[in-house]
Amino acid sequence: MGKQHLVTGGAGFVGVNLAQRLLSQGDQVIAMDDLSLGHRAFLQPFEGNPSFSFHQIDCAEFGPYHDLVARLHARQPIDEVWHLAANSDIPSGVADPSIDLRRTFLTSFETLRVMRVVGIPILHFASSSAIYGDAGGQPIAEDYGPLEPISNYGAMKLASEAQIRAAAEAFLSRATIFRFPNVVGLPATHGVILDLIRKCRATPDGFDVLGDGTQRKIYLHVEDLIDAMIFIRDHARERYSVFNIGPDDAGVTVRRIAEMVRDRVSPQADIRYGEGGRGWVGDVPRFRYATGRLAAFGWTPQLTSERAVAKAVEQIAPVEVGDR
Amino acid sequence: MGKQHLVTGGAGFVGVNLAQRLLSQGDQVIAMDDLSLGHRAFLQPFEGNPSFSFHQIDCAEFGPYHDLVARLHARQPIDEVWHLAANSDIPSGVADPSIDLRRTFLTSFETLRVMRVVGIPILHFASSSAIYGDAGGQPIAEDYGPLEPISNYGAMKLASEAQIRAAAEAFLSRATIFRFPNVVGLPATHGVILDLIRKCRATPDGFDVLGDGTQRKIYLHVEDLIDAMIFIRDHARERYSVFNIGPDDAGVTVRRIAEMVRDRVSPQADIRYGEGGRGWVGDVPRFRYATGRLAAFGWTPQLTSERAVAKAVEQIAPVEVGDR
Repeated sequence: MGKQHLVTGGAGFVGVNLAQRLLSQGDQVIAMDDLSLGHRAFLQPFEGNPSFSFHQIDCAEFGPYHDLVARLHARQPIDEVWHLAANSDIPSGVADPSIDLRRTFLTSFETLRVMRVVGIPILHFASSSAIYGDAGGQPIAEDYGPLEPISNYGAMKLASEAQIRAAAEAFLSRATIFRFPNVVGLPATHGVILDLIRKCRATPDGFDVLGDGTQRKIYLHVEDLIDAMIFIRDHARERYSVFNIGPDDAGVTVRRIAEMVRDRVSPQADIRYGEGGRGWVGDVPRFRYATGRLAAFGWTPQLTSERAVAKAVEQIAPVEVGDR
Repeated sequence: MGKQHLVTGGAGFVGVNLAQRLLSQGDQVIAMDDLSLGHRAFLQPFEGNPSFSFHQIDCAEFGPYHDLVARLHARQPIDEVWHLAANSDIPSGVADPSIDLRRTFLTSFETLRVMRVVGIPILHFASSSAIYGDAGGQPIAEDYGPLEPISNYGAMKLASEAQIRAAAEAFLSRATIFRFPNVVGLPATHGVILDLIRKCRATPDGFDVLGDGTQRKIYLHVEDLIDAMIFIRDHARERYSVFNIGPDDAGVTVRRIAEMVRDRVSPQADIRYGEGGRGWVGDVPRFRYATGRLAAFGWTPQLTSERAVAKAVEQIAPVEVGDR
């Protein structure tokens, strides 16, 4: 019999891809999500699968969260927790920090509390390149300092990492930190590709881009991401380990993404650029990873940033993407 | 007329020393404290001083905190906030993470929210060497990475810094981060010197030390600390700046401190050492700062770690130190 996994944010973009992968290798998955950003429709592929269960719950609320996990753990032990629940909508958290506090940080804090009380010793955490802040576009390795996140999202991801590090000292037997870059693919819930496809569909003659289009960041396809997470989980032996997951390239500009979307969705559209090198407060205009640690560990992505974006545009464009 | 300052944790060890200094230079001080660790008796020197006021309030509770600050700010603008409120009792936070969450992190989070809503643009924050975790005793500079705090206290200080960094991007005009080492002096509320003096008083024939006594850390006298904070505040011009504040030495061992206490309090006492190089989970056994940034800025402490401890032992030993 396989292992039993708890996936928080289990009805979100990364969560459903991870669940799919864990199920395909014969493991069991308990998905939890408050459905504030995740969608029940994403779980349709798992319907009727006895190895999968879903629970709508707010992982920032200790009482019910603890009771549910304790009950499930008593029935059959939960071996590992994959904590993905977070507010993935960065601009919303800049406008109202309490969103990131609750959805990104308190879900981490309460997940750790629940794990400690219930007795689950292994945690995998979805962190973010946003913890590095704006380092000017140089390749950033895992031990980079100073860490100066410029968005509340990044701040709360760093806060979560810090709390997990202390928990690794106090009670966890293993903690793995995955620092995600921009991740693209299906099912899309947010992000620049989805935004631009929606805009281009809404007004096929022309659409606006946030910022001047020169922002250049790395992108990873979700299939590569899941592959890396499983690879790291299978091979990491340290009590606490941290990995940048991403391509070893200089990224793709927003301008290039807008052009790919236009070419695919509405070739006659005018692309109208805004001003300045940032799309919003807290946007990091140029970002790339140093990926030497993961490469030395034995993993590299299949797709470059450019190819990951191109594949995601092809995947997302035909899908119904109106508000659910 | 001088500036008006809000000092959170204003009835604590550092808070009362800071208030004293600000008042002495002709400024006005509003002190706030929930008195969970601070003491009203510490405020006695300010009684009857029209430039000082004290408010007992929990800075982790947005509603009343906001209302109070808004009312005071409307009466006379608050120019700067010195956010010192925190759970300074590190072992208690290792046992129960919610203490550090509430007292160390949420006080920071809500202070930022209040400042944003009320419109106070300048923040000075008491951070800690605990954010660096256990870096093995090498001299640690401000841009050191990776940041891996091993106590919840350190995690929540790092979380606070991260949140402040993001706020500096969003709305603060100036934020100064002071990374404190162990700070000693009067009025003592916690820490190794007070602990050992109390133990030695309680059982003058012999007392126990946590760990094997080889832990070696740096110590700063609170008079030096306040001097550095004011110096940095007067000279820093960056929107966001971070300073280690401490002596440029290798520190003092717990064994040496225990001997100084014994010699002062009860020369016949046996010192009984525990086992292992850590006093508790989350204790960093060897720690020292690189202080080049502050030295280049123009400030160095008067006292070495050894002399700071010696002075504090002399100051604390004669004072009534029973529970208040």
